[in-house]
Amino acid sequence: MKPYKSLSKEELFSLFQELQTKYFELKNAGISLDMSRGKPGADQLDLSAPMLDVLNSTSSFKGAQGFDLRNYGQLDGIIEAKELFGELMDAPVDHVMVYGNSSLNIMYDLISRAMLHGIGGNTPWCKQEKVKFLCPVPGYDRHFAITESFGIEMITVPMDENGPDMDLVEKYVNNDATVKGIWCVPKYSNPSGAVYSDEVVNRMASLKPAAADFRIFWDNAYAVHHLYPENKAEIVNIVTACEKAGNPDMYYELCSTSKITFPGSGVAALITSPANIAEIKKSMTVQTIGHDKLNQMRHVMFFKNAEGIHKHMEKHAALIRPKFEAVLNTLEEELGGLEIGTWLKPIGGYFIAFDTIPGCAKRVVSLCKEAGVVMTPAGSTYPYMNDPQDTSIRIAPTLPSPADLKKACEVFVLCVKLATVEKYLSEK
Amino acid sequence: MKPYKSLSKEELFSLFQELQTKYFELKNAGISLDMSRGKPGADQLDLSAPMLDVLNSTSSFKGAQGFDLRNYGQLDGIIEAKELFGELMDAPVDHVMVYGNSSLNIMYDLISRAMLHGIGGNTPWCKQEKVKFLCPVPGYDRHFAITESFGIEMITVPMDENGPDMDLVEKYVNNDATVKGIWCVPKYSNPSGAVYSDEVVNRMASLKPAAADFRIFWDNAYAVHHLYPENKAEIVNIVTACEKAGNPDMYYELCSTSKITFPGSGVAALITSPANIAEIKKSMTVQTIGHDKLNQMRHVMFFKNAEGIHKHMEKHAALIRPKFEAVLNTLEEELGGLEIGTWLKPIGGYFIAFDTIPGCAKRVVSLCKEAGVVMTPAGSTYPYMNDPQDTSIRIAPTLPSPADLKKACEVFVLCVKLATVEKYLSEK
Repeated sequence: MKPYKSLSKEELFSLFQELQTKYFELKNAGISLDMSRGKPGADQLDLSAPMLDVLNSTSSFKGAQGFDLRNYGQLDGIIEAKELFGELMDAPVDHVMVYGNSSLNIMYDLISRAMLHGIGGNTPWCKQEKVKFLCPVPGYDRHFAITESFGIEMITVPMDENGPDMDLVEKYVNNDATVKGIWCVPKYSNPSGAVYSDEVVNRMASLKPAAADFRIFWDNAYAVHHLYPENKAEIVNIVTACEKAGNPDMYYELCSTSKITFPGSGVAALITSPANIAEIKKSMTVQTIGHDKLNQMRHVMFFKNAEGIHKHMEKHAALIRPKFEAVLNTLEEELGGLEIGTWLKPIGGYFIAFDTIPGCAKRVVSLCKEAGVVMTPAGSTYPYMNDPQDTSIRIAPTLPSPADLKKACEVFVLCVKLATVEKYLSEK
Repeated sequence: MKPYKSLSKEELFSLFQELQTKYFELKNAGISLDMSRGKPGADQLDLSAPMLDVLNSTSSFKGAQGFDLRNYGQLDGIIEAKELFGELMDAPVDHVMVYGNSSLNIMYDLISRAMLHGIGGNTPWCKQEKVKFLCPVPGYDRHFAITESFGIEMITVPMDENGPDMDLVEKYVNNDATVKGIWCVPKYSNPSGAVYSDEVVNRMASLKPAAADFRIFWDNAYAVHHLYPENKAEIVNIVTACEKAGNPDMYYELCSTSKITFPGSGVAALITSPANIAEIKKSMTVQTIGHDKLNQMRHVMFFKNAEGIHKHMEKHAALIRPKFEAVLNTLEEELGGLEIGTWLKPIGGYFIAFDTIPGCAKRVVSLCKEAGVVMTPAGSTYPYMNDPQDTSIRIAPTLPSPADLKKACEVFVLCVKLATVEKYLSEK
């Protein structure tokens, strides 16, 4: 098939009619499918069901440090869980805090605390005239929603398959003291699947921020979420990289078991310097009684160690790899050579980022919706939902069944074709 | 025995020597006991161990609304848990949000949200010149720690066995628009055990606040924590009272299972108007992925309904009632007639509030500590840890074993006697 851009007006029009006929057929088929959120499928959740048996009424409930895990106390998590996350993320135990079920909540609280109480003795952000965050794009909508909710100005930084444009990041961070943070998903990035290169991580760790209270929000959400056991991405460890660069307090690294065990009933962890931990614990004492230690112990008993988690993740991979491949194959088969879309082939994570030609993403998502396929709203991968080129679409392939996914992909590629033809026709 | 204040200097001095001898004996006995925090004993925690069996790998995980309880979603709690808390607290289901393990965290978040985003479209508190809270005393140290951490000015309001001085509350709230909230523990108050009278609750609900964003923080932490099954305190329902008074949005009512099942692994709930819930949910979407729905379901399956909770609480009462009575009996036997301390006899909750004569509380707590008995720091029951009369001490009898409690009480009453005699001697 020829690239669409090389088609004549007549060829485009005849194609348009053909695609439109197919579209109306699909629209009348009563499809109702969802490729909008990065939710595990029920088969993935079943993998962790046995975790609910490891702790029961006959358990001892005594932690390694002698505390009764059912009672109050241990604000920063039980030692067993700190050890598990420390091993998994390759961080010393005194760099680990274990929380409740939501790493998003940890990030929200970190920023809320910075707004109201400041970081490292500096003026609280809410009392500073202007606070800015760098937002590599395409990125995670919920990150952007947090910064937007606090009135923090968001600056987009383009990203490629090796991570954010570090020239730009250095320019902003090293010269502008109102730049207080950057959102990063360094491995299997949401949504592109990009993996930060060693150079990118090392340059990130070596920033010389103009603001003393600048922090890297290192959301390592997909640290162990490989699709191919034989082809695992490795990134430079942000903890040691920052320490080596003389910036030991500059990062907050996040991870969770939301997509390892149960979203909603997992365990999240913060990895950061002991100095940062001491500061956080001071205000956490006022904020909460602590987190669910029984659920922390449930995870520890189920996995035993990092190796247990890695083996478990291979089972996840076996379930979702075919779904990713089904989407990628459909994209390749249906759109290859047409030059109407680009995408990376992720080797981990939860998403596929798809770029239309400029000015088509919103139309594609809207056409999909009319035909019964819910996609993440176009623009979601940009701050303020504002994708200036209107190209970026996030595909979340994990939740639908394989059969549903096949049908949803058919709808999607048809809508991409139709929207592109409409666009070209309107310009002829 | 004669009241101490009627003793002559010589009698006091001879008593002082006698008490001091006993004190040094106790001090050398190597006692190490803790009456400082309202923690359940291990025997109480055992009551809920079977809850860990109700949900296991063979469960269905389907909620009544068809959702998979293991996956993301249902930000405001599962319907089953809303129904359970609604029945328990006598509130309509659309007035209930079910959270994670910490009602303290709900309160912190409510105030944090008011600080940063405001309430009901009003100016955020952090942008208002002055924000004040009323703090009935003696009260709960963690309430005061939250308001203090946000720089909110705290005004003490005296409390008796019927609740706060409502003349004063009305004067402040109805005339001063900088007064934005009041902390209340309406039933079995922490620490005095006071139960708000119908008149107090009705006057509270009928306030005509000068501030549109004034809220009552109704921490009903001990709603079902009766000590005597045949003598249960009942209070007027804040939901219906506020609605009747034309103030449907004026309250946030909190409760949790921290002292019903497991502190740290319980479930907390917020009860408030649908309008308040809508406002809270809007910012919660940004803050978190939601709370642990499996643990919510575990509670629902274990208790089935409010009656299940009430029966369970009778078992708690049977375990802690003897502890309360041991403390109260020792106080009565050892201090009765001496006029050196006053206390209420609580019929529920977790504490006994003890008042020394003015200027003695700190000394009593310090003497106890030297003798190996940790009490809640004197002053904790007042904002800023500042008890101007230095009289208020909180006794938490639930954690020690009965034998330990007996010993701790011996130390305590001896220290009260010694501190009082020291005080009187210094004034002669």
